[in-house]
Amino acid sequence: MNIYDISKLAGVSTATVSRVINGFDNVKPATREKVLSIIASQGYTPNAFARGLGLNSMKTIGIMCADSSDMYLAKAVYYIEGALRENGYHCILTCTGYERKSQRESMEMLMSQHVDCIILAGSIFIDKDDSNNKYIYKAADSVPIMLLNANLDHKNIYCISCDDSAAMEKATEFLLDNKRNNILYLYNSNSYSATKKLSGYRKAFEKRGLKCNEDYIRYFNGTSKDLEKVCGFVTELADKGLKFNGVVASEDFLAVGALKYAVRKGIKVPKDLEIIGYNNSVLTVCTEPELSSVDNQLETLCTNLVRICIGALSGESMPQKTVFNGELIHRSTSASSRKTK
Amino acid sequence: MNIYDISKLAGVSTATVSRVINGFDNVKPATREKVLSIIASQGYTPNAFARGLGLNSMKTIGIMCADSSDMYLAKAVYYIEGALRENGYHCILTCTGYERKSQRESMEMLMSQHVDCIILAGSIFIDKDDSNNKYIYKAADSVPIMLLNANLDHKNIYCISCDDSAAMEKATEFLLDNKRNNILYLYNSNSYSATKKLSGYRKAFEKRGLKCNEDYIRYFNGTSKDLEKVCGFVTELADKGLKFNGVVASEDFLAVGALKYAVRKGIKVPKDLEIIGYNNSVLTVCTEPELSSVDNQLETLCTNLVRICIGALSGESMPQKTVFNGELIHRSTSASSRKTK
Repeated sequence: MNIYDISKLAGVSTATVSRVINGFDNVKPATREKVLSIIASQGYTPNAFARGLGLNSMKTIGIMCADSSDMYLAKAVYYIEGALRENGYHCILTCTGYERKSQRESMEMLMSQHVDCIILAGSIFIDKDDSNNKYIYKAADSVPIMLLNANLDHKNIYCISCDDSAAMEKATEFLLDNKRNNILYLYNSNSYSATKKLSGYRKAFEKRGLKCNEDYIRYFNGTSKDLEKVCGFVTELADKGLKFNGVVASEDFLAVGALKYAVRKGIKVPKDLEIIGYNNSVLTVCTEPELSSVDNQLETLCTNLVRICIGALSGESMPQKTVFNGELIHRSTSASSRKTK
Repeated sequence: MNIYDISKLAGVSTATVSRVINGFDNVKPATREKVLSIIASQGYTPNAFARGLGLNSMKTIGIMCADSSDMYLAKAVYYIEGALRENGYHCILTCTGYERKSQRESMEMLMSQHVDCIILAGSIFIDKDDSNNKYIYKAADSVPIMLLNANLDHKNIYCISCDDSAAMEKATEFLLDNKRNNILYLYNSNSYSATKKLSGYRKAFEKRGLKCNEDYIRYFNGTSKDLEKVCGFVTELADKGLKFNGVVASEDFLAVGALKYAVRKGIKVPKDLEIIGYNNSVLTVCTEPELSSVDNQLETLCTNLVRICIGALSGESMPQKTVFNGELIHRSTSASSRKTK
């Protein structure tokens, strides 16, 4: 039901409907009553309805993120909120946690607030079983949906991401080029972007006709709060006889944990072990030696997400897929200047 | 102007005003028109007005923070948003930056959204010149204002903080007890809580009748992104002849920078230098050795802030000052088990 439906049912012009909704008084009382009662029969208050029609938009955009205290997501929220505010929008933030049920509830809450658009920050919201993505498709029937670092093919859904697969492939290739063939791969998620990263690791081996040994692909069951556990996890792998001369990790904290293991064991980094993290977070510069890491251009992603969002809200035709490249940042845990060695 | 004024002007009961505002149809058209026109004459749309009266609260709370990508503030936003959501509220987040002007604008934006309450996360919003705090007092005339880690004496303003002075005093005392009398104090802000921390450092010396040498109190002009600069800053102080056997810092990243200096120079930590940070952030466990730090109980602060906020919104009498104690967390940069040495 839109403004045209209302005007038809009430037998008045759309301009009159708009005047009623916006509370202007140049409308006959009887006409106003009629329009209001038709709107009310839909279970809306006039104002909420007006916002739903975009006539009297509250200029509000919903942001869903699993955990705004996660460093990467916190930065994403910061960049997105700032860019939206510059464009005259403000944002309602919900931290959904990692359960599908609470994610659906957050989406419903935002829809009930008649936000102009919903931004899903992070790939955690997308399920591999597409039937679990219906709550997103349903929302996309009403408002544009923006996905950061995720992918869904659907009308009114716009995806902005880093090519995590290519970036991880580049990091892995860098180590393979230095004859580091035993590369431990650490990851802690099976989300869309985590899956892409792992596929990049495998591709680097395949491209060189090398066998990718599954023993070297290790899932760590924990979060960034568990740094000490990561160190223990890597130590245990080494103690059990796994030999590795390289580590790539899907998140910086996993690489920091691996570096802890090396520092405590007195292993020379990068001479005997090279380590590369992912996200280029502040953690990379806390450690000694400082950690090399893949920068997935979060600020660029967020700025462009907001640009596309604003365009879509203005009715412009915007691209549904936008992909940027990651960049490998060399610090002291990768042998970046090999020629001088 | 409130619902009683409207009912007087319209010559109807407050119940009738409420029915009109909430869009119920058991009101005579003429009465409805009259009430709406009185509300409109005040320049409100019925719904915004209703929210302003709390009759039809949007259950929205505004959160202002300088920079939601700051790790400490990101955690605060996370805890606050989660606790509010559990209580049926959602939050509009604005990242204001560090300029007073943009902070005032954010406040105005939130007020124009008719939020039920505004939470100021961090002490950066409070000015030492009280005339610059008028924008907060003005907002407090309309809605409760919650201050996290800050203090203002005013009606409808509720302050929840950690006793940063006592916590920093405890950390400094701990080093003095171990005959570390040359304690470098690093800080990077003059905010309310930063000032409290510095006063705690001074108090620890005074209490022991020791002179607090101002040469050891050093302001670092930079943010948490400037870790390498902190290391350079401390190195320069040492190179210029400043002798110190202890470091306490107002933020963890400053302590991490000092630790970098020690690791690079081969100084034994904690044997020849003890270092204590503040905030107990994830940075503390990235380093080797891991950093001792003051935990200022952020989660407890945030949970209680929301509890008091919800109480105040329900019209209960709530305390205007709530203060918690910080806790010194020993890791590997302080000699915590001295008896065994």
